Amino acid sequence: MFHAKIYIHKIKNMKKEIIRVVLLGIFLVSGCIKSNAQSFNRAVQTLENFEPTIPHPEQDQSVLNKLKDIEKKTGKKPNIVWLVVDDMGYGDPGCYGGGAAVGAATPNIDKLAAEGLKLTSCYSQQTCTPTRSAILTGRLPIRTGLTRPILAGDNITKNPWEDELSLPKILSDNGYYTLLTGKWHIGEAEGMRPHDVGFDEYYGYYPAQKEITQGIDSRRFPDLVLNEQLMKAFETIRPANHLTHGFKGGKTEALEEIKTLQDMGRADHNLTDFTIAKIKELANSDKPFFIEHCFMKVHADNHDNPDYPGLSTSKYQYKNAIVEVDMHIGRIVKVLEEAGVLENTFVFITSDNGPQMDAWPDGGYTPFRGAKGTTFEGGVRVPGIAYWKGVISPGRQSDDVFDLMDLFGTSLTLAGVSKDKLPKDRYYDFIDQSGFLFNDEGKSNREAVYFWWGSELMAVRVREYKEHVKIIIPQAPHMWIDYATIQDVGLAPWLFNLYIDPKEEMPVGHRRNAWLASLGAQLKSHAATFKKYPPKNIGL
Amino acid sequence: MFHAKIYIHKIKNMKKEIIRVVLLGIFLVSGCIKSNAQSFNRAVQTLENFEPTIPHPEQDQSVLNKLKDIEKKTGKKPNIVWLVVDDMGYGDPGCYGGGAAVGAATPNIDKLAAEGLKLTSCYSQQTCTPTRSAILTGRLPIRTGLTRPILAGDNITKNPWEDELSLPKILSDNGYYTLLTGKWHIGEAEGMRPHDVGFDEYYGYYPAQKEITQGIDSRRFPDLVLNEQLMKAFETIRPANHLTHGFKGGKTEALEEIKTLQDMGRADHNLTDFTIAKIKELANSDKPFFIEHCFMKVHADNHDNPDYPGLSTSKYQYKNAIVEVDMHIGRIVKVLEEAGVLENTFVFITSDNGPQMDAWPDGGYTPFRGAKGTTFEGGVRVPGIAYWKGVISPGRQSDDVFDLMDLFGTSLTLAGVSKDKLPKDRYYDFIDQSGFLFNDEGKSNREAVYFWWGSELMAVRVREYKEHVKIIIPQAPHMWIDYATIQDVGLAPWLFNLYIDPKEEMPVGHRRNAWLASLGAQLKSHAATFKKYPPKNIGL
Repeated sequence: MFHAKIYIHKIKNMKKEIIRVVLLGIFLVSGCIKSNAQSFNRAVQTLENFEPTIPHPEQDQSVLNKLKDIEKKTGKKPNIVWLVVDDMGYGDPGCYGGGAAVGAATPNIDKLAAEGLKLTSCYSQQTCTPTRSAILTGRLPIRTGLTRPILAGDNITKNPWEDELSLPKILSDNGYYTLLTGKWHIGEAEGMRPHDVGFDEYYGYYPAQKEITQGIDSRRFPDLVLNEQLMKAFETIRPANHLTHGFKGGKTEALEEIKTLQDMGRADHNLTDFTIAKIKELANSDKPFFIEHCFMKVHADNHDNPDYPGLSTSKYQYKNAIVEVDMHIGRIVKVLEEAGVLENTFVFITSDNGPQMDAWPDGGYTPFRGAKGTTFEGGVRVPGIAYWKGVISPGRQSDDVFDLMDLFGTSLTLAGVSKDKLPKDRYYDFIDQSGFLFNDEGKSNREAVYFWWGSELMAVRVREYKEHVKIIIPQAPHMWIDYATIQDVGLAPWLFNLYIDPKEEMPVGHRRNAWLASLGAQLKSHAATFKKYPPKNIGL
Repeated sequence: MFHAKIYIHKIKNMKKEIIRVVLLGIFLVSGCIKSNAQSFNRAVQTLENFEPTIPHPEQDQSVLNKLKDIEKKTGKKPNIVWLVVDDMGYGDPGCYGGGAAVGAATPNIDKLAAEGLKLTSCYSQQTCTPTRSAILTGRLPIRTGLTRPILAGDNITKNPWEDELSLPKILSDNGYYTLLTGKWHIGEAEGMRPHDVGFDEYYGYYPAQKEITQGIDSRRFPDLVLNEQLMKAFETIRPANHLTHGFKGGKTEALEEIKTLQDMGRADHNLTDFTIAKIKELANSDKPFFIEHCFMKVHADNHDNPDYPGLSTSKYQYKNAIVEVDMHIGRIVKVLEEAGVLENTFVFITSDNGPQMDAWPDGGYTPFRGAKGTTFEGGVRVPGIAYWKGVISPGRQSDDVFDLMDLFGTSLTLAGVSKDKLPKDRYYDFIDQSGFLFNDEGKSNREAVYFWWGSELMAVRVREYKEHVKIIIPQAPHMWIDYATIQDVGLAPWLFNLYIDPKEEMPVGHRRNAWLASLGAQLKSHAATFKKYPPKNIGL
């Protein structure tokens, strides 16, 4: 953690001329593409500051009718519950090929997938803060400035949230009760806390669990513990390790501190208890609710919950954590049912990025290349399960692309908020996917998913094709974050066909030129949005 | 194909002193193990020439009772149907994480998995002939000599089948009608054909489909086509390309030749038609039946069936082939139902080895390291679905180990044949897994799976651990067969924990020494079986 200062320094230098870098990116990408390249783009741009959408007017209309019927029956807009697991790999849940086969059964997640829609091309950003900020703003991290955690030692020049309009703010303004339980990780200072940026209530921990426990588990840093001066320096920048309960308007309580590794092991149980109690309470209120429940697990370092010994057949802490989180997901869905709101609640289960393999064996499983911290599939393809009893038919599965930012647009539709009401001075990257998720034969409205690493535009996916212009290469096995380099592609972008090559091992660039150029054009038009809508510089 | 002669020469030299090599292997393996190593072996040896078994007397007895009840009801022993897909990857079926997510939906296989038992640690040998011979003899290829295809140019010194007692022979002698439809690949000469070695009837093609079509598709070998002398040499060793219909006793008909790539594309449809007709006929007979239906697809080269254009969303030939095979599996199960024998038929769906990635993009998907031709998981972990309406409860899944050779022992139990009736002069590697497969909470009776490559003992799996003493390393991406080397491990065997490291990337040898030694002891005791029961030398 002491190294954080050096890290911050390096990052600051990297980002100083962020706008220049992005515009240079546009130039570089353009160089890879013939100017008269054919584009197979199906998407249509209706408003200049919104990501183009593949039009499916019938499915959109069908959803509006369904929502009207439900509202007529319940007298409320539908509730929205996101269950965000931290650093869970695509391959960890049983329904994605893991589960008992990798020593950690996930019966609850599997059941929700079997009774809902399992997305097999659902994308996050490549790390935590970028994903968490993107789904709440509907905008890419490069646009909001939230490209990495704001650490306690950071002297940022601008609060990135100041001029952002968050989903919970919009929902709260439109009659919802909005709650975030669990991990935050998008700013701890006043003005950047969940209850400052739009949530009516917050109950959780600001940082990732290892940032809390590594200060307690001194075995991790004997060099600090034995050196008083270094330890003091560390203490000044270590993040908050207490449970925080806050309300919109500023009222904020610091509750229990995490003092032992066992305390941390129990955190997810306690957070789930809180969410459960709130669901019982809110189910009886006049207001619909939006709950983003963010688990502390399964981010390294995982510590067993001492009240549940030996949960997994594997016995490793990561695996026990997976089984525990699955259990809590089951508990939350059960209380929705018991409270009688299951048929009026849209539930979405996901992870904020791929597994963190640098922490292995306290890391998960992805069948793909790469891991958290990369824009290969291993870093960004995550489980995505949409569950809504009575609205989403059991047994659905789709490989159509979905970006977690699309939860923003989809939630607006659920709340009956038109996107015309959003500010016109900024670019929005989300797509409204209600037509895709809530129709039996629904198709994705999204044409392309863009992959960024900090201020680097790395890759794009369209249909089953993915084109990389920059690549993360680990310099040792599993070292995708702490010992990796960003490298440029050689002669041409690396184009992979993810159907015949899910592991991104064999570029087909020179054999599939039509797609190479079309995806290149897609990257170029994406980069061009930054000309009119420059990225925000927060001095990070 | 002309290179086959050089290949044969090399292989002959390699195998000349096969026994010496194996015994040397014992020595090498022993060297890796402390002599006083603790063993965690749960298996018990009851007869010297049989693989030790983990005792589960209650589940074994329960199955015997079930089988008695079914026989009372139907008046027959149960039918047995194996559906063997050629070179299908573990990740290809949807229920194993592929399907529509990799551009080739497999609704029929997925349905059988959902209504039966999905095995997630089911093992084949690393290539075709070894697997196909092992499941019919219950013995490892190294014991029978059938470690690779017998090619038309081979001058073997002994017919390996001569002194083998095949499963179809045993079943036929015990009242079954036994049929093999489709690919054989375990010897084309008289005395080695399916209807010579125990099957009552054979209808299919001896070789793999590429061995047939590459003689037609001359684009593959312009160097041969343009050189008359080479072409003649090639013709003398190329395998039969006609459909063969044979009966026990020797009556053999050569039917239509494959003359065009379209003919090959249609072959699986026609073979399935044959199996379907036979099921209809045999369902009304007094005899139970054993059918091994071996698809020609999805072994490269795959050629689209022109009667089913564009089957897959991916459109690649491999993907179309997957969808077509899935369709035929659905047709076969449907006719079992229509013929009224579904509740008296044990169906097992599998692949003979991992995907052949050297043929990519005409190759499949495995999430694991390696591919066909290796003893990494990618080469040997295959789909394994056990389906039996009324006997196997829907929705079962197990990660307990299963070796495809266990189909031999399980089939004996189904036919009511005691293993005491098998010869005592040879070692049997199969395990009777009826207790595992046919009880709701059934556990595997197998302790260890051993992995061989030709005459090299490579690795062993016990529980979630896999220990390698030799490794196949590709010398270029995807070149697991044609451009790979066999290498010895360094300081210690490579020990992987497949739960925390399904992709075999991070050996845990020095951290998990207890298992290192126990698995080493397991390898040693396996190697020791070759002292008393030496491998057969057929001069291959």
